Amino acid sequence: MVNETQHTCSISSSSKSDGGSSSGSESSKDSSRCSTPVLDADRHERLREKMRRRQDSGDKWFSLEFFPPRTANAAVNLISRFDRMGAGGPLFIDVTWHPAGDPGSDKETSSMIIANTAVNYCGLETILHMTCCNQTKDDITGHLQKAKRLGLKNIMALRGDPAGEEWEEEVEGFNYAVDLVKHIRNEFDDYFDICVAGYPKGHPEAESYEADLRHLKEKVFAGADFIITQLFFRSETFLKFMKDCQAIGITCPIIPGIFPIQGYHSLRQLVKLSKLEVPQEIKDVIEPIKDNDAAIRNYGVELAVSMCRELLDSGMVHGLHFYTLNREVATTEVLKRLGIWKEDPRRPLPWAVSAHPKRRVEDVRPIFWASRPKSYIYRTQEWDDFPNGRWGNSSSPAFGELKDYYLFYLKSKSPREELLKMWGEELTSEESVFEVFTCYITGEPNKNGYKVTCMPWNDDPLATETNLLKEQLEKVNRRGILTINSQPNINGKPSTDPIVGWGPSGGYVFQKAYLEFFTSSEIVTALLKVLKKYELRVNYHIVNVKGQNITNSPDLQPNAVTWGIFPGREIIQPTVVDPVSFLYWKDEAFALWIEQWAKLYEEESPSRMIIQYIHDNYYLVNLVDNDFPLENCLWQVVDDTFELLN
Amino acid sequence: MVNETQHTCSISSSSKSDGGSSSGSESSKDSSRCSTPVLDADRHERLREKMRRRQDSGDKWFSLEFFPPRTANAAVNLISRFDRMGAGGPLFIDVTWHPAGDPGSDKETSSMIIANTAVNYCGLETILHMTCCNQTKDDITGHLQKAKRLGLKNIMALRGDPAGEEWEEEVEGFNYAVDLVKHIRNEFDDYFDICVAGYPKGHPEAESYEADLRHLKEKVFAGADFIITQLFFRSETFLKFMKDCQAIGITCPIIPGIFPIQGYHSLRQLVKLSKLEVPQEIKDVIEPIKDNDAAIRNYGVELAVSMCRELLDSGMVHGLHFYTLNREVATTEVLKRLGIWKEDPRRPLPWAVSAHPKRRVEDVRPIFWASRPKSYIYRTQEWDDFPNGRWGNSSSPAFGELKDYYLFYLKSKSPREELLKMWGEELTSEESVFEVFTCYITGEPNKNGYKVTCMPWNDDPLATETNLLKEQLEKVNRRGILTINSQPNINGKPSTDPIVGWGPSGGYVFQKAYLEFFTSSEIVTALLKVLKKYELRVNYHIVNVKGQNITNSPDLQPNAVTWGIFPGREIIQPTVVDPVSFLYWKDEAFALWIEQWAKLYEEESPSRMIIQYIHDNYYLVNLVDNDFPLENCLWQVVDDTFELLN
Repeated sequence: MVNETQHTCSISSSSKSDGGSSSGSESSKDSSRCSTPVLDADRHERLREKMRRRQDSGDKWFSLEFFPPRTANAAVNLISRFDRMGAGGPLFIDVTWHPAGDPGSDKETSSMIIANTAVNYCGLETILHMTCCNQTKDDITGHLQKAKRLGLKNIMALRGDPAGEEWEEEVEGFNYAVDLVKHIRNEFDDYFDICVAGYPKGHPEAESYEADLRHLKEKVFAGADFIITQLFFRSETFLKFMKDCQAIGITCPIIPGIFPIQGYHSLRQLVKLSKLEVPQEIKDVIEPIKDNDAAIRNYGVELAVSMCRELLDSGMVHGLHFYTLNREVATTEVLKRLGIWKEDPRRPLPWAVSAHPKRRVEDVRPIFWASRPKSYIYRTQEWDDFPNGRWGNSSSPAFGELKDYYLFYLKSKSPREELLKMWGEELTSEESVFEVFTCYITGEPNKNGYKVTCMPWNDDPLATETNLLKEQLEKVNRRGILTINSQPNINGKPSTDPIVGWGPSGGYVFQKAYLEFFTSSEIVTALLKVLKKYELRVNYHIVNVKGQNITNSPDLQPNAVTWGIFPGREIIQPTVVDPVSFLYWKDEAFALWIEQWAKLYEEESPSRMIIQYIHDNYYLVNLVDNDFPLENCLWQVVDDTFELLN
Repeated sequence: MVNETQHTCSISSSSKSDGGSSSGSESSKDSSRCSTPVLDADRHERLREKMRRRQDSGDKWFSLEFFPPRTANAAVNLISRFDRMGAGGPLFIDVTWHPAGDPGSDKETSSMIIANTAVNYCGLETILHMTCCNQTKDDITGHLQKAKRLGLKNIMALRGDPAGEEWEEEVEGFNYAVDLVKHIRNEFDDYFDICVAGYPKGHPEAESYEADLRHLKEKVFAGADFIITQLFFRSETFLKFMKDCQAIGITCPIIPGIFPIQGYHSLRQLVKLSKLEVPQEIKDVIEPIKDNDAAIRNYGVELAVSMCRELLDSGMVHGLHFYTLNREVATTEVLKRLGIWKEDPRRPLPWAVSAHPKRRVEDVRPIFWASRPKSYIYRTQEWDDFPNGRWGNSSSPAFGELKDYYLFYLKSKSPREELLKMWGEELTSEESVFEVFTCYITGEPNKNGYKVTCMPWNDDPLATETNLLKEQLEKVNRRGILTINSQPNINGKPSTDPIVGWGPSGGYVFQKAYLEFFTSSEIVTALLKVLKKYELRVNYHIVNVKGQNITNSPDLQPNAVTWGIFPGREIIQPTVVDPVSFLYWKDEAFALWIEQWAKLYEEESPSRMIIQYIHDNYYLVNLVDNDFPLENCLWQVVDDTFELLN
């Protein structure tokens, strides 16, 4: 019965294909970046399917290669880079396998954990490299099992560099990448998409170019899904290689590896490792400017752009793979000049989705973690099912504990000295804390001349949407309503709206006004009196660090505060104010006062005691104005509260 | 953690109780009739809890007693009466146990099946009577198990009348109602709410009034939750009885049984059965008018109203139980005059909810069965879970087959002769069928002077909401777009709107325009060409009786076409256009042409062949205009189609 609902047409074949293709192409346009299950099928697609769909639609794409960082601080920076470069719309990123860096471990800097972060916390389709030589079958199986457990779905199968100079084949071991490919297919069937490396000039250790092509064919026939090539310096090199591959029957996608020259030394090192020869015409340009980094980078960008153009113009190339060397500027510049860097302001959902397969169907989250999505993902990583939109029932899974490790995902990108400049070397009163909040809202420098660009609850400057509320927010923060989250009400704006829009085009989005803040018990007492007047219109939750909780929310039900109506779909309500998870959020929100702010100061210092006092005595309040078609009444509620106090 | 979210307040005790009670009373006002789980807690409440809540809030209520009908036709009529009298808002109805009518069987007329229908198809809280004398323990356990399986939750435990004149107690059997009460509590623990009978004048067979009170106390202490009394003629009788009960420690609710006198003979018969004496002052009035039914009924209403007023004014009575004798007029009149008949135009959901416990959480249905909710409930009665809002996945449960038995719930309330008058004694062409549809829409008489008040797909006259579309519908039906279901688009009307509103107050409701019709393949061919212009705006499903199916719906996803936004809650989307269930509806919609219409005519007759031709060749089409804030474009689609045809 179900099968009959596939597109079939008995009346005219033209109407069938028209109906089918037009709805199909709409969804391919909408969804090839990142997407939600409810919004489109993309999140269910495998990488090889996405690649095929892009090729079919003629939509050019790019991907980015990174290596694991050496220090925890570098890891924090790399993750920020993932977020920034992820905004340009890569089809995937890949993370190299660094045998010397304990790549399969749980270290913050391991290949495994960096790839895990890219998938789960940054929502990026990710390929994890894996080398096989000098490793036992059990080691490799263990790595693959772990990768699968973490939600990784793609492996780049490599031989890796043998340990010593004199490498001997092991009879039972993994001697070539093809052994790894076979092993993955044997042990994990079709679970992983497998990528292998291609050498446009032939592998340096191969008997011949032709012999190397045959090895490549073996890898593909053993089960590889696509090929990424070693870097090269001339488009002809790649195009010839591609034709030669096709001639011997390799039909899978072959993606050229692009290396924008970014500096003299990095070029020399890479060339040495890859045993490639830099063409004379490039050497001729570079040698004279070898000490001028900017000049070399400009030339490198120029060179990469023109080579990429030749590749794309050939009609044989649909995607480009970039060796970024963990740097942003050159690659981003090349991509922008090629016109394939696509910062699409449209979002599939109002929050950044995760790429872990088990979160595919996640389509609702509490609003509280809006500025801390990585923390939310961390604290819910053990959940078995998504969505868990209805936390208010007894079967809701527990949130993860606040543990040290997750502070890695929570720590501020700014060092202590910078935070002190922003938040005050010395606090003298609660009012000096109000002042910090106010400066963060206004964007004005504080009294020492520093701009406050982050807060413990918001590691980035104010969201564009919040800017709509700036004037009101400034006023209330000055008076001790210390806001940490808010959204305006929206009554049916197009889903393509550049500020509040999300989801596929043709839809309408809505919001209820929301305001969340810390404030003193004196203000809370007045607020509660005022809220009686708004009993049927405003829902509130008020809680202190001890968990004393006041609410008018009926039966612990979540309140949907962001929703969208789209053509041909069910309603999507991605953000809710949920009474149960609010109490978990409360622990985190109060802890940040101490962990991120109080601890900047000496123990027993007045500054630290002021923050500690606020932590111990203030309340965390959230308010929802349910009457979204009317003017937001929450400011009136706050005004009435101050009036009552005076 | 979850427990902490209960109302607690550390700041001021007044704000606690205010917050608590105001949200509490709002929901009690909204929900004491019928309700959905998402909308309020009422559907989860047991009858005894509802009773208590009504008593606490001072909200007077009534209930209605019916006996099982003798014939299948009478059953169809009784079910219509349940729907009509259910609209007045009874707290419950009860169905008597008719030992001579095979009361526990699957017959259409059995007590069990009538109670089942009231609960499951009419959505009424229902008490099933059950008598115990002359029955084995196993029989009774079997009946109770069956009642539980069918979703019945309340039993009225009675002794019943012994079979012979000389009744002897059985040592191991059930001799008194108290034995049945104990048995229910032993075997079913607290599953059922149990009601027992009270005799304001004492049971006629009791040794004394006092002895009977002691028996009643035994029944209550054995586990009965409340008492309904035998009828009586003076309010003092009941009030004295109630005080006497309280004096010996009976504290559960005692509900007076009200018998509006409706005729001379029914009064005499009841008095004989109950061995009560009619007071002289009543006899004095009735005897002279005993042949004037209307006069007796008017007097009966008058008498009942004044007695009920005395009861309610006493402050001791919160609910009134009516012995209806399966008649509507007198009871309804009494209730209206007392002001407790409350036809609340507000609906908890746009469709009538079922009272089966497993359907408590049901909050979404396909739009197709909008005019045939009983058929939808029948066809989904085997489902284990509700809501099943997402039929489009492989785990969706199957719809029940179209079987003969369910035609009991489907058969028209009108007899064949009436249907022939409405739909035509003789059809001459497809156009004469168009004419029938048009008359149904306009409410004008057909060419033989008969109004068409029902159709095979709609057993009732046009819904108020559909009236909004009347003019357009008339136009298209005339031309062979044979509409069977439609709704206008609504962009955020208050949930209290008398025509399109539903759900608790303070919310907003929305709809996408919907149109469903049968039409010829010629029109479908033109329509499909026109729909290309509307590809991104209009979703369509077009199917013929063979299951050939044309759609532009992406990935078999349901399209939400009715939704509501309410204070402090998740979004509710009670109606969807679902591609999978449409194919099940299609079977039913096409079958109705034959079962209800074609079969009115002789086999091989021209009239029958016309209907058969339409059944075999027409398509069933549904259209959704996704752009709910704009003017409905579906009429333009139809106009364009006719233009293309000309």
